[in-house]
Amino acid sequence: MAKELKELTPRSVNYAQWYQDLVIKADLAENSAVRGCMVIKPYGYAIWEKIQRILDDMFKATGHVNAYFPLLIPKSFFSKEAEHVKGFAKECAVVTHYRLKTNEDGTAVVVDPEAKLEEELIIRPTSETIIWNTYRNWVHSYRDLPILCNQWANVMRWEMRTRLFLRTAEFLWQEGHTAHATREEAEAEAKKMQGVYADFAENYMAMPVIKGCKTESERFAGALDTYTIEAMMQDGKALQAGTSHFLGQNFGKAFDVTFLDKEGKIDYAWATSWGVSTRLIGALIMAHSDDNGLVLPPRLAPIQVVIVPIYRNEEQLAVISEKVADIVENLKKLGISVKYDDSDNRKPGWKFANYELRGVPVRLAIGGRDLENNTIEVMRRDTLEKETITCDGIETYVQNLLEEIQKNIYKKAYDLRASKIINVDTYDDFKQKIEEGYFIMAHWDGTAETEARVQEETKATIRCIPFEGDKTPGKCMVTGKPSAQRVLFARAY
Amino acid sequence: MAKELKELTPRSVNYAQWYQDLVIKADLAENSAVRGCMVIKPYGYAIWEKIQRILDDMFKATGHVNAYFPLLIPKSFFSKEAEHVKGFAKECAVVTHYRLKTNEDGTAVVVDPEAKLEEELIIRPTSETIIWNTYRNWVHSYRDLPILCNQWANVMRWEMRTRLFLRTAEFLWQEGHTAHATREEAEAEAKKMQGVYADFAENYMAMPVIKGCKTESERFAGALDTYTIEAMMQDGKALQAGTSHFLGQNFGKAFDVTFLDKEGKIDYAWATSWGVSTRLIGALIMAHSDDNGLVLPPRLAPIQVVIVPIYRNEEQLAVISEKVADIVENLKKLGISVKYDDSDNRKPGWKFANYELRGVPVRLAIGGRDLENNTIEVMRRDTLEKETITCDGIETYVQNLLEEIQKNIYKKAYDLRASKIINVDTYDDFKQKIEEGYFIMAHWDGTAETEARVQEETKATIRCIPFEGDKTPGKCMVTGKPSAQRVLFARAY
Repeated sequence: MAKELKELTPRSVNYAQWYQDLVIKADLAENSAVRGCMVIKPYGYAIWEKIQRILDDMFKATGHVNAYFPLLIPKSFFSKEAEHVKGFAKECAVVTHYRLKTNEDGTAVVVDPEAKLEEELIIRPTSETIIWNTYRNWVHSYRDLPILCNQWANVMRWEMRTRLFLRTAEFLWQEGHTAHATREEAEAEAKKMQGVYADFAENYMAMPVIKGCKTESERFAGALDTYTIEAMMQDGKALQAGTSHFLGQNFGKAFDVTFLDKEGKIDYAWATSWGVSTRLIGALIMAHSDDNGLVLPPRLAPIQVVIVPIYRNEEQLAVISEKVADIVENLKKLGISVKYDDSDNRKPGWKFANYELRGVPVRLAIGGRDLENNTIEVMRRDTLEKETITCDGIETYVQNLLEEIQKNIYKKAYDLRASKIINVDTYDDFKQKIEEGYFIMAHWDGTAETEARVQEETKATIRCIPFEGDKTPGKCMVTGKPSAQRVLFARAY
Repeated sequence: MAKELKELTPRSVNYAQWYQDLVIKADLAENSAVRGCMVIKPYGYAIWEKIQRILDDMFKATGHVNAYFPLLIPKSFFSKEAEHVKGFAKECAVVTHYRLKTNEDGTAVVVDPEAKLEEELIIRPTSETIIWNTYRNWVHSYRDLPILCNQWANVMRWEMRTRLFLRTAEFLWQEGHTAHATREEAEAEAKKMQGVYADFAENYMAMPVIKGCKTESERFAGALDTYTIEAMMQDGKALQAGTSHFLGQNFGKAFDVTFLDKEGKIDYAWATSWGVSTRLIGALIMAHSDDNGLVLPPRLAPIQVVIVPIYRNEEQLAVISEKVADIVENLKKLGISVKYDDSDNRKPGWKFANYELRGVPVRLAIGGRDLENNTIEVMRRDTLEKETITCDGIETYVQNLLEEIQKNIYKKAYDLRASKIINVDTYDDFKQKIEEGYFIMAHWDGTAETEARVQEETKATIRCIPFEGDKTPGKCMVTGKPSAQRVLFARAY
């Protein structure tokens, strides 16, 4: 790393700039030469690999298998499901030709006009269509069901305004696509996967979420129900961190996926789909990080512990390194990922700032006096607290500390949310509180018109109709009409 | 699985048809609605996941990290490296537009002519260009080097004749792209990764390989040297199972990636790239499988052991299941993946055939008499041998058997290759032996003309100039001109 570490823009000055600074300076990602497409740098990708591994294990534990479907989708497939086409056959990358050639004077490469495709192909924005076209041949009888497939893939949506991780033209994700013999089973599957996402968000990302379902206008194009988990970022805005869709028989009908049921009758298969993406890395950053840099929950940190030696000369370094070797070995035995940074091209102070920037949960430092006293300095990234403790039993101490940091990061996020979520009963109050960055629980008359008006006037959307909490009926804050329960409004990423 | 198991075309009747039958019937992959693009089905993908996990660990053990670069590459990038453009800017998928719209009468979705890109984008056929364009900003000083990045990604080459796994328009692969301060370091890296591939092929895929370098005309477009591993399939044809390229400073110069060296002089960075793909699954199939189906080396088998109960009634099944539960638990403790198939919709004979087709290395069967005698039937997939042994210590027995199968599959492939690799000294002999499916070691005069003539007349290519073995000079079998050493000729996939 040749460049010097530089200060981040503080969150209080410009939250959006702070985010952008952090992503770049912590070496997580950068913009590429292709509009809206990012390069995920090794440190950012290492976080994605942790996310992938954990989620993949959770998917497999719930009976799913991975498969892989084509990147390109025939244009006509999008027209087969009436709602889906409205949502997805818009801003997308279109392949029209399959050959380049050298131009006549040999100076440039040009598209060969003779290599035009009969039917254009679309880079998948999501894969329901190509997958359900495939399932048609996989499903004949109820015995072939359920199909419980997931794929890890890249997808592309030609977004006009992009932000690293949060909204990019190409992004990485997983998309589960399941087929079932009954409505009940498909609905249960969609809810189960929402539960898996919530479990992951809370117990690994240390990010509390509100589970609920989307309103009709916020649903996935082609879904009968979209289940979501909504998280609060530090600026009070919401981030949709995962969605799971009950698709009914819409895709079964559009792609003629039928089966003989137990009674020998032909029926259409029932569908779900569910996905999370590299957007989660954006959520992770905005939920926990501070003006010094990333704060990573230990369970997702590529490096959980860094050890920095502080030495006057080579001899002292040798003694420190010998002592540290044991600690490293013991930490690894406990399954903790640890890095010993004895590089000699940077001073300890620079290293400290660098690992803070990168969100390493625990930093150990050991110097000459520590050698004499058999001590070590421990710094925890979440609170930046330092203490000097004995080396005896340091490994167990660190193991417990990592657990405590994981819990503390969650608690901080939970407490912040608790302080910024309120009930509001009048539209005037609503307008004021939404400006102040609150999650607002308010009554709504259930119409798309009111929803659209609120969005237009305040930029807030209904994030979800929460499953838990107060279910008391009331009156819509805008129209005064009856409301079945309060719903969650917020501005959102 | 609703369909009945059907016989595979025997290898001796039609090797190509046998391969195609096997891929389809063992549920590994199928063709999709998009020309040349395959669907990798869950069982095939599970093999790919094993391959990925093992290789990824090997890459990390050799100091590499993963990252992710954009799917789309600006067309102009291909023109920047003179040789590279000849090799890759040909048959490829070209994105020309970024929006679809509904046509005027509302009946179809069409490409919006107003959403034409200023510069066309190419779906990556390989990523040297976009990655080296990125590296330009990562590299300033020798301290920033080496960069040791790998990515797992999909790529696309618009192949005219495709075959599942072996040659598809879209395929999955990993591509390593490294940047170095010196020529020596880059060359060593390229050879090291060839070594990693050879290690993986031999010790995991149980597939012996010949290591060597490519002739100039068979090199990767833009490389100074291409190192390859070549494997023999059962029909005597060669399959290039992995390549590693020393790219010199070609991409450093094309994308202006310079650095200050230790002496303070500016130099261009040195490059390597290396990759293996889902093609390896094709190799795995063709190297080992037989007329009954897949034969998977235990180290890559998604299911290593299957246990099938043979029972007369529910009571007996309950007793068997109780006994099997212990065996399953003990096998899992040994790190062995095991499936107990007590499904009641298929007879044991059908299950036996099914697991043979899918190449599960060890099958255990247990019935009423076994219960009385405390025995179990063990069938090994590689030899199809059965024996009945005591249940005492069955877990260790199976563990050892899996190791033995791994070795035996390798030995079988090694022996086959040994029997089909010969020295040939005259072109007449060559023409005959190449028809019979041999790997031929012959002298060659080192010219591209002779190489092209041999290919045109016999369809054989020089697979590599082997690193090991006989280095005695001689005379070209075609022209009689001097030859430095024998090279490996074969027909190839």
